[in-house]
Amino acid sequence: MLLPAPYGTGLEHVSEPIPIIGATGALGWGLAMRLARAGESIVIGSRSAERAEEAAARVREVVPDAAVEGLLNDEAARRGPIVFLTVPFRAQSENLNNLREVLEPEQILVDCTVPTAAAVGGKATRTLGVWQGSAAQQAQEMVPDGVTVIGALHTVSAKTLSEPDAELGEDILVCGDRKADKARVARIIELVPGLRAVNAGPLETARIVEQITSLLISVNARYKTHAGLRVTGLGDDDHWG
Amino acid sequence: MLLPAPYGTGLEHVSEPIPIIGATGALGWGLAMRLARAGESIVIGSRSAERAEEAAARVREVVPDAAVEGLLNDEAARRGPIVFLTVPFRAQSENLNNLREVLEPEQILVDCTVPTAAAVGGKATRTLGVWQGSAAQQAQEMVPDGVTVIGALHTVSAKTLSEPDAELGEDILVCGDRKADKARVARIIELVPGLRAVNAGPLETARIVEQITSLLISVNARYKTHAGLRVTGLGDDDHWG
Repeated sequence: MLLPAPYGTGLEHVSEPIPIIGATGALGWGLAMRLARAGESIVIGSRSAERAEEAAARVREVVPDAAVEGLLNDEAARRGPIVFLTVPFRAQSENLNNLREVLEPEQILVDCTVPTAAAVGGKATRTLGVWQGSAAQQAQEMVPDGVTVIGALHTVSAKTLSEPDAELGEDILVCGDRKADKARVARIIELVPGLRAVNAGPLETARIVEQITSLLISVNARYKTHAGLRVTGLGDDDHWG
Repeated sequence: MLLPAPYGTGLEHVSEPIPIIGATGALGWGLAMRLARAGESIVIGSRSAERAEEAAARVREVVPDAAVEGLLNDEAARRGPIVFLTVPFRAQSENLNNLREVLEPEQILVDCTVPTAAAVGGKATRTLGVWQGSAAQQAQEMVPDGVTVIGALHTVSAKTLSEPDAELGEDILVCGDRKADKARVARIIELVPGLRAVNAGPLETARIVEQITSLLISVNARYKTHAGLRVTGLGDDDHWG
């Protein structure tokens, strides 16, 4: 189960299931639906097996031949080498505490949480200071030794991602300490049409990237839209080879 | 001199000179050169009158009919209602102390400084915590009462901006507490072909926007480029009307 995933061209499929913890929410569900539509095998995790299966059923409504199942979080997290964590920031610590017994060395945890002040009843256009510097760095501190945290998917609109007919055309900033790990996550992200993964630097760069979500939420309110982000000047090469 | 600038369509010129403090550096000089090429009257400010005039001469090399002059900072800052401050962050406080005697109520100061750790010998891919929250908020604290600070031009590459033949195609995130003030600055920014001004929110949003510079510097090193930023999903309307 924990073998390196065999991909290279970005056009091949990932051979193992992709667990998405918190995929009952819009961000995780949108990712699940779009990856399922790209032919990936998806495992939706939730605190409730019933809600997990219900979310899986909703994926099958959009993608009739989807390979998707809904399980409790701890069962889901065992099912693939790269686990996405898409819960709200206020639930991040609780989830990571629960996953501590489950995650194994060599697994990658993709932390998608954003510490907006909404987590404590404040404005989503403002952020919380996280002691470790960022939610991703907090996650790195909380996972078992040998588990690598990658930060990603902060700037894509959960609403857009979860609307089956909405077109995407934006970048995902990927933060992590080893390029090879980031590349594995990038290959999954780029299975979603319209998403490009950009190497944003070491995990500590999540301090900056996570904040951009609040900026975009502020832009959304002002422009009545669901904004995303594109980095200009990168050229069309594959930077993950 | 301090009357509101008369513009509306974005195609009209700004009628008053545009002072750019620190335009001997790449960012300010690039802005000066491109606004001069757009037909604007530019006043380059520097601590040295000689260096200011030398920078103005370099603008005239690119734009032979440029309306540009080089003056000492305090003289330059009196020449127009909207003053750009394009000095390095480590020189921001000194410059604002000097300008305190010069700036007058109703003037707008466009702060373009970015508190990267390079200001204290650290990495430009990391940022400093500024007590007030951001360089722009520090500037707001330091300017005389009645002077409005707007944060802008953090994410455009100084190198690209200062290369006369380089094409731009990116957004400038504009932070400030009143839309009318941001709109005046936006009109100037959008006189530069290839730049679009996006209303990024109140001045406190500069906390986030200034950090993005460090992110882009990190991306530049990795991708061997001069990256910029675009916000997707905004549509083509003029949002400043």
